[in-house]
Amino acid sequence: MNPPETLLSHIKENDKFYIVPHIFPDGDALGSALALESALCSLGKKAIVFSRDSVPDMFDFLPESGRIAPMSDLTSPEDATLLLIDCNAPNRADIERVKFKYTIVIDHHETESDFGDIRWVLPKSPATGLMIYFLIKSLGVDISSSMALNIYAALAVDTGIFRYSNTTAESLSVASDLISKGVRPSFVADRLHNNWTEAKFMLLKHMLNSIEIQKNTAICFITNDMLKKTGAKPEDTDNFVNFPIMINTIKVAALFKETGNNFWKASLRSRGDVNVAKIAEKLGGGGHKNAAGFRITADIETAKKALLESLDGIGESSGGD
Amino acid sequence: MNPPETLLSHIKENDKFYIVPHIFPDGDALGSALALESALCSLGKKAIVFSRDSVPDMFDFLPESGRIAPMSDLTSPEDATLLLIDCNAPNRADIERVKFKYTIVIDHHETESDFGDIRWVLPKSPATGLMIYFLIKSLGVDISSSMALNIYAALAVDTGIFRYSNTTAESLSVASDLISKGVRPSFVADRLHNNWTEAKFMLLKHMLNSIEIQKNTAICFITNDMLKKTGAKPEDTDNFVNFPIMINTIKVAALFKETGNNFWKASLRSRGDVNVAKIAEKLGGGGHKNAAGFRITADIETAKKALLESLDGIGESSGGD
Repeated sequence: MNPPETLLSHIKENDKFYIVPHIFPDGDALGSALALESALCSLGKKAIVFSRDSVPDMFDFLPESGRIAPMSDLTSPEDATLLLIDCNAPNRADIERVKFKYTIVIDHHETESDFGDIRWVLPKSPATGLMIYFLIKSLGVDISSSMALNIYAALAVDTGIFRYSNTTAESLSVASDLISKGVRPSFVADRLHNNWTEAKFMLLKHMLNSIEIQKNTAICFITNDMLKKTGAKPEDTDNFVNFPIMINTIKVAALFKETGNNFWKASLRSRGDVNVAKIAEKLGGGGHKNAAGFRITADIETAKKALLESLDGIGESSGGD
Repeated sequence: MNPPETLLSHIKENDKFYIVPHIFPDGDALGSALALESALCSLGKKAIVFSRDSVPDMFDFLPESGRIAPMSDLTSPEDATLLLIDCNAPNRADIERVKFKYTIVIDHHETESDFGDIRWVLPKSPATGLMIYFLIKSLGVDISSSMALNIYAALAVDTGIFRYSNTTAESLSVASDLISKGVRPSFVADRLHNNWTEAKFMLLKHMLNSIEIQKNTAICFITNDMLKKTGAKPEDTDNFVNFPIMINTIKVAALFKETGNNFWKASLRSRGDVNVAKIAEKLGGGGHKNAAGFRITADIETAKKALLESLDGIGESSGGD
């Protein structure tokens, strides 16, 4: 994974960099931005991370995360190079109207636009953090323990701590190097996975109580009333649909989240060859083969019925891996 | 991690090996034994894995696991070298009364006895599987894709897929090499973690409904009635106490499992500096700083009260990491 020569020479020849992760930044966006900031500063350059949104509590363990500046502090962009991190279109970072001297994109998502004077976009990279690792090494910077922790966290978040199918041999050999630079894997795992609020935990309990299993399909729901009762936040439900898919006889798991009176947002997960993107499309939504979603206006029983009808036998087919 | 020369030369100079993992074998014991068997067979030697217990369903994905022989098939041990795997005392494998020609121990647990003509015991190794990797390489055997999967699974099981504090830089660099030999990390993670029975899942639901939080302590219980109602097995509860410890305000989590009428077995977990071994000792049990247990004869409310009294302020102290 070699960064483009144009990227390396631009960084070497310039001195002022504004590093911007995407809005609602996750661990990959934040860890990547922070590691790159430290590396550029260690080269004597001026580098600042600007973010529209503040750092979510679960990522406040990232070294230097307290130094991230709000977008309102961004001044004189016309003198600075933008490093757009973990996204590749300016609207994904809320900087459509800002004019920089020069723009660089570093990302691993599918491209959404042709923005950027230099674009280094590798959709096959499991994380932007992995690209940042190779960029920092190519710049001749020694990876410090805080850079290592930021990169490890970035990689851990986007690979589900090395459980997702995007986990490559290269990501583990890099992770190994980062451990030798001081990262404690159990510390990162604890911060990412043993860091639930009591409200979120109680919401999970309510969700599990709503479970209904039919035809190798598990359906759960979360109402606004459950959110209110527990004090949990809507974003607390982000990975909840992964719980029912742990059951080895379940081919499709669905979680309906109430977004208004009789409005539901459904998240779908599937095992192996079962394609939930097709199901979601039938119901006006979309997504990937094993992770998709749709919205529906109906009471919960009608919504469940609509899903089960559109599955129609799919859950019963032998689609497991 | 270099295997002893005596071990390498004994293997090179001999031809018949009986490989025996511990009773109730886990992924490390089985994956290690199976990878070693394949390696020895590839050197033209006779090698058979014998196990007192059959392979648990969750490990039936391990390559060659169908070839494991029951202990009743073990004949003529006086001609064979024993390779005792993932334990270091013969009673741990139910072979106290078997006389082998020669005995070798390969293990990463604290030593329990001085059994073995050759003992290669490394308590600092995160898994026996890691030792087997270096042994196979030292024997000059190319690691095949099925050996790689067995070793990866061994390593994954004993490090919680690289989340526990025993995860080292070396384990990730070995895991990286195993991926390059064909292991799919998401396949292993799926088999280990998305492979719950519906009964186990429903038992978790019941356990979560029993949760009570007091003074930074979470207490849950599982009754025989819950087991009966769900059809779950007692061993399904093995890691359940790790659920309430996910809550970031919880310093101590306890799970009481009913083992008879008014008999309870309690598992304790703690965060950071909170020492539950001391609590367990007060109540007649024992264990490690962050994972301990005790037994108590009482009704559940009295049992809970006894625990809370012996905690007495500990849960309130700032012991988090």
